[in-house]
Amino acid sequence: MVEGVKSVDDLLRSSFKVQEVLATDAWVGEHNKDVPDYVELTLVTPAEMERLSAWKTPQAVIAVTEMPERKLSEMDMEQPLLMLDDVRDPGNMGTIVRTADWFGIRQIVCSQTTVELYNPKVIQATMGSFTRVKVYYTDLPSYIDECLKGRRVLGAFLEGSPVRHFGFQPSDVIVIGNEANGITAQVAQKINDKILIDSPVEGSDKAESLNASVAAAIMMYQYYVSINC
Amino acid sequence: MVEGVKSVDDLLRSSFKVQEVLATDAWVGEHNKDVPDYVELTLVTPAEMERLSAWKTPQAVIAVTEMPERKLSEMDMEQPLLMLDDVRDPGNMGTIVRTADWFGIRQIVCSQTTVELYNPKVIQATMGSFTRVKVYYTDLPSYIDECLKGRRVLGAFLEGSPVRHFGFQPSDVIVIGNEANGITAQVAQKINDKILIDSPVEGSDKAESLNASVAAAIMMYQYYVSINC
Repeated sequence: MVEGVKSVDDLLRSSFKVQEVLATDAWVGEHNKDVPDYVELTLVTPAEMERLSAWKTPQAVIAVTEMPERKLSEMDMEQPLLMLDDVRDPGNMGTIVRTADWFGIRQIVCSQTTVELYNPKVIQATMGSFTRVKVYYTDLPSYIDECLKGRRVLGAFLEGSPVRHFGFQPSDVIVIGNEANGITAQVAQKINDKILIDSPVEGSDKAESLNASVAAAIMMYQYYVSINC
Repeated sequence: MVEGVKSVDDLLRSSFKVQEVLATDAWVGEHNKDVPDYVELTLVTPAEMERLSAWKTPQAVIAVTEMPERKLSEMDMEQPLLMLDDVRDPGNMGTIVRTADWFGIRQIVCSQTTVELYNPKVIQATMGSFTRVKVYYTDLPSYIDECLKGRRVLGAFLEGSPVRHFGFQPSDVIVIGNEANGITAQVAQKINDKILIDSPVEGSDKAESLNASVAAAIMMYQYYVSINC
């Protein structure tokens, strides 16, 4: 289920097989022509929308879509890639997908413990980017061994070298770990280089860490800057 | 009300006037000595904690604290500064405070329409950083006119120049705008330089924008990198 004008707009322009669109007058008047013939379009009242919606402030449209299952064999191994190792918070997950989309990273490989892409809170936080970024789930240690030969795998660790001085290559794969515990021991063994977002603050008067989606964003930004300068 | 082991730990080490700590056996056993004599300490059962907590998965401790009101006159105008213009989402607000803390920006001036720091969701997302970052609320256009003389004010706009090429000065003030509408017209008039986090993706196949807390984080990171390299 996909809610909101922006997300449904992106969904209807994507290759997803949309099954049904439920919308109020306000949306249908403006977007009727965006709905393909084979999609069932149901007019609902604002009161009905309020009951259907999972949001506090419902928007004018909800779509029901098939959830394509991504197969690792369909991946383009020449393209940029991000890995998520046990990211649990739906808001973080959605924000990471949105940020990856912005920086042109359209493939994300996740551990099987990472939150499901089709969780409604994840979908909402992607702001439509779930239609452009392909998200795969698999066992990360064996995936790294079997599929990432020749690509450098990078992860954030407290003892890493500052990412601002790090020379990225386009084929580098960045791993983002769990919100509380970071990268799992099994994946840590496969990391080629340890990096770190350093802080100018020293000692006990320091923030403990960055939010996972913020750390991921800074890593992706620095990757983009480093390979384009 | 401050929940969670990490946040209460930071709170007890701060200058905040804590009034009461409610904790389970598990927490008291380990942290009893961290609670000053003048703070009331109440032992609660896990079942009571569940009823008190606003969280789905309550932790072992909740503290009640006075909320210091920050006065503009107490600001250190020589220190780094961030401005928030109508940031509404509590999660974004808290994450921005946490990220600012990481990058050593310990003063934030907010529009009166920006979400309140002491909103429980904001406090939670700061992960204790609310104890180190001072957050002020005022009318931003007059604040810029009256208090920021000689400091450059920067904001993100679609027509801005890429932040990755921007030469920051330590005295620069970055403005972060509203999640949906960006920087307000009144504040936009006061912006000295327009900057932008650019994307390698072109055309209609592009994410519309970045999340506000992600954009803020990348700006703060680039500010830190630029003035330290």
